Amino acid sequence: MSTKPNTPKGMRDFLPHEVIRRNHIMSVMKTQFERYGFLPIETPAMERRELLLGKYGDEGDRLVFKVLNSGEKVKKADLEALKNGELSRFGNSLSDKAMRYDLTVPFARFVVQHQNELSFPFKRYQMQSVWRADRPQHGRFQEFTQCDADAIGSDSLLLELEYILMVDAIFGDLQLSGCTLRINHRKVLEAIAHRAGAGTETTRFFTILDKLDKVGWEEVKRLLLDAEYDIDIIDSIQRALADKSTADQLDALKQLLGSSDSDDDSLQDLGFLFSNLGHLSSTTVVFDWTLARGLDYYTGSIFEISAPEQVSVGSIGAGGRYDDLTGVFGMKDMSGIGISFGLDRIELVLSELDLFPPALHTSIDVMVVNFSTELITVLFPYISELRKQGKRVFVYPSAAKLKKQLGLANQLQIPHALIMGESEWKAQSCTLKDLRTGEQSTIPLYGLMQYSWD
Amino acid sequence: MSTKPNTPKGMRDFLPHEVIRRNHIMSVMKTQFERYGFLPIETPAMERRELLLGKYGDEGDRLVFKVLNSGEKVKKADLEALKNGELSRFGNSLSDKAMRYDLTVPFARFVVQHQNELSFPFKRYQMQSVWRADRPQHGRFQEFTQCDADAIGSDSLLLELEYILMVDAIFGDLQLSGCTLRINHRKVLEAIAHRAGAGTETTRFFTILDKLDKVGWEEVKRLLLDAEYDIDIIDSIQRALADKSTADQLDALKQLLGSSDSDDDSLQDLGFLFSNLGHLSSTTVVFDWTLARGLDYYTGSIFEISAPEQVSVGSIGAGGRYDDLTGVFGMKDMSGIGISFGLDRIELVLSELDLFPPALHTSIDVMVVNFSTELITVLFPYISELRKQGKRVFVYPSAAKLKKQLGLANQLQIPHALIMGESEWKAQSCTLKDLRTGEQSTIPLYGLMQYSWD
Repeated sequence: MSTKPNTPKGMRDFLPHEVIRRNHIMSVMKTQFERYGFLPIETPAMERRELLLGKYGDEGDRLVFKVLNSGEKVKKADLEALKNGELSRFGNSLSDKAMRYDLTVPFARFVVQHQNELSFPFKRYQMQSVWRADRPQHGRFQEFTQCDADAIGSDSLLLELEYILMVDAIFGDLQLSGCTLRINHRKVLEAIAHRAGAGTETTRFFTILDKLDKVGWEEVKRLLLDAEYDIDIIDSIQRALADKSTADQLDALKQLLGSSDSDDDSLQDLGFLFSNLGHLSSTTVVFDWTLARGLDYYTGSIFEISAPEQVSVGSIGAGGRYDDLTGVFGMKDMSGIGISFGLDRIELVLSELDLFPPALHTSIDVMVVNFSTELITVLFPYISELRKQGKRVFVYPSAAKLKKQLGLANQLQIPHALIMGESEWKAQSCTLKDLRTGEQSTIPLYGLMQYSWD
Repeated sequence: MSTKPNTPKGMRDFLPHEVIRRNHIMSVMKTQFERYGFLPIETPAMERRELLLGKYGDEGDRLVFKVLNSGEKVKKADLEALKNGELSRFGNSLSDKAMRYDLTVPFARFVVQHQNELSFPFKRYQMQSVWRADRPQHGRFQEFTQCDADAIGSDSLLLELEYILMVDAIFGDLQLSGCTLRINHRKVLEAIAHRAGAGTETTRFFTILDKLDKVGWEEVKRLLLDAEYDIDIIDSIQRALADKSTADQLDALKQLLGSSDSDDDSLQDLGFLFSNLGHLSSTTVVFDWTLARGLDYYTGSIFEISAPEQVSVGSIGAGGRYDDLTGVFGMKDMSGIGISFGLDRIELVLSELDLFPPALHTSIDVMVVNFSTELITVLFPYISELRKQGKRVFVYPSAAKLKKQLGLANQLQIPHALIMGESEWKAQSCTLKDLRTGEQSTIPLYGLMQYSWD
């Protein structure tokens, strides 16, 4: 192979300092997920093709990676479909499996498949890669990691409340302040859609509203007008809610929508949430009637989290309540609520805002300088003891020049070097050098284990 | 969908207690990998197809999962190849990417691609899934997790020594005693092959020897005889080494092979390792001249770890030294050594031997019983405080019957329940029940944070 090998387009390697940073974020999430009573599960990278297709809309279907059948099975290629230009059908004839597109549909499948092994309400978290054959761009990759927490088998509003508290706790632990969690309710949106002239067909209304982030309010109004919605109603709602506290907004909406609409409970639910939030440390929670969240399966509360304004990566997490996620697999009446954090985008945000703790560069505590195999060999019991005490020790494997060895320690940002040459060995001592400050201490070998260094 | 959905054949879901067990194993490995100075990296699940194919032999090539190209690209299907029954070539025309088959070839690619961002010697660990289109059977899956540690850019024997110590430390932490690490050297094997009549073509000799585990010694001898090797030499070696200490075995081999062979250093190297091992806590290290390790790229020391004899899962880890792993990608003279642990098999072994700590059933510390939304809401500041102090709290989301709520806690093996009904709230106290022993304590609410419970 003459050309330099590289990763497939849109897929990335992670260097040590990047993995350490990503693990830091996942560790914070894992800690909080568990404090909120979620249990970990994992599902395979691949699912049966027919389980995934048809669940994410046409656009989603096109982005699902299909896995080629092995061996003789490729003989089943539907050449007729190829000839007719039905490329998707041709692909399907060659593929029984597909790569996981998100963690929600696999979770629904998991719940149905293992319903007799699970106890409900069931709260699970899952942090795994997903794959989408999407055009790569800033903050968008073909392989990325989602961190999901879902609670299924209960329609209690306490779950919504706990989700908001958990979001705040996660961003607090990440030192990321200034995030905004926008919250809305599908039933409120439906009531508004009805008032604006939509019949039972509200999906179109949601789809247009969902473009707000990308195209702006004027364009959304134009699209709603084109779709023959009553734009005056929408304008009057927008005006009536302007510059009001959340409680007043909810009251105003109640007045506007009237008590005959079925949204009554949902406004009350939102009111319950806002009045019970208490003090949040790092997240602002706002009611936003324009939040739509495109996905069909949401039926209740919906929410979306944006990074601080100075970083333009869009949503870093989102979720909502669904009443019938497992219905498509034949298991009815399982209300649930889920949230999904985008690890890769949170990583981008923390990087751009320089919020990673400085110690996250390396996972090594000390480099042992190697003067000779003989000296290292006699030092080995001490090295083993340091490791047993939890120190992470890089032993330079050969007796290279001191400058080269310390150069590596510097490149890897290892904070300490342990130096023991012939003269130190004779004196039964060693030198511990702080590579950040240059300070050196001479320590008797017998005192090495008791020496306190950070 | 009328049938119950399930995972693809050979691929598995992991329930919470299984993930917790797997995470326990990976956490032990991560801790020891880091104590031995390895840094974490990650590579994508997919690689360019041509990077993987041709690296694992014909058998390996057939087991590589190929990913179907998206959209228009499937029009490039090589129908000629399909017609001629060249199924692999047909598959290749539809696929640019393939699923990672192991973590070694991706690591070689990683080193070459990032050579200017890395400092050598470079020690990396990597714990990720790999995929093989293999026939599923006991302990063999189509998706499984490898935990690899490689050190590249040094041929120092200290690395071999550290690997053995690290293997011992890992199994020690897992409470798994009775593992055997068998070690050999490719150059010793080559010398034996030469003596037995092989020319420069030693691969065939290794391949036959590699079947020893599966077919037994008599069958291997027959195969060697069929291949016209000098079976008397092999018999005499076998006899000369029987019932000897490792040092004597190495001496005897030196005598048998004579000093003219190039294996001299390798016997000396093995001698160095055995004389410097010191006291190992849970692993037996033995010299085994019959260990061959099929993979072509090994050039120096090779080793394989077997589980205790009462569990029949075969190898749970293996590795060796390679002198030119990155050569195939145009980067010469990078000696390295690697080890790969099979997470799934280690999990099987620990399960069969019942060696997982009992606390690994759940990650939840306490279930808060829900008597009413109102009571839970006033309790929330206390719940938040418990969580801030690190307790993992499952709040039952609705006011179901007490029996049902405690039933869930029992099913999830949650050790404690926090109970606060109307009367307790009036008395500003709560009841903490140990669900394992049935013991109950009444605690004043203000004392809840200070209460010590395990």
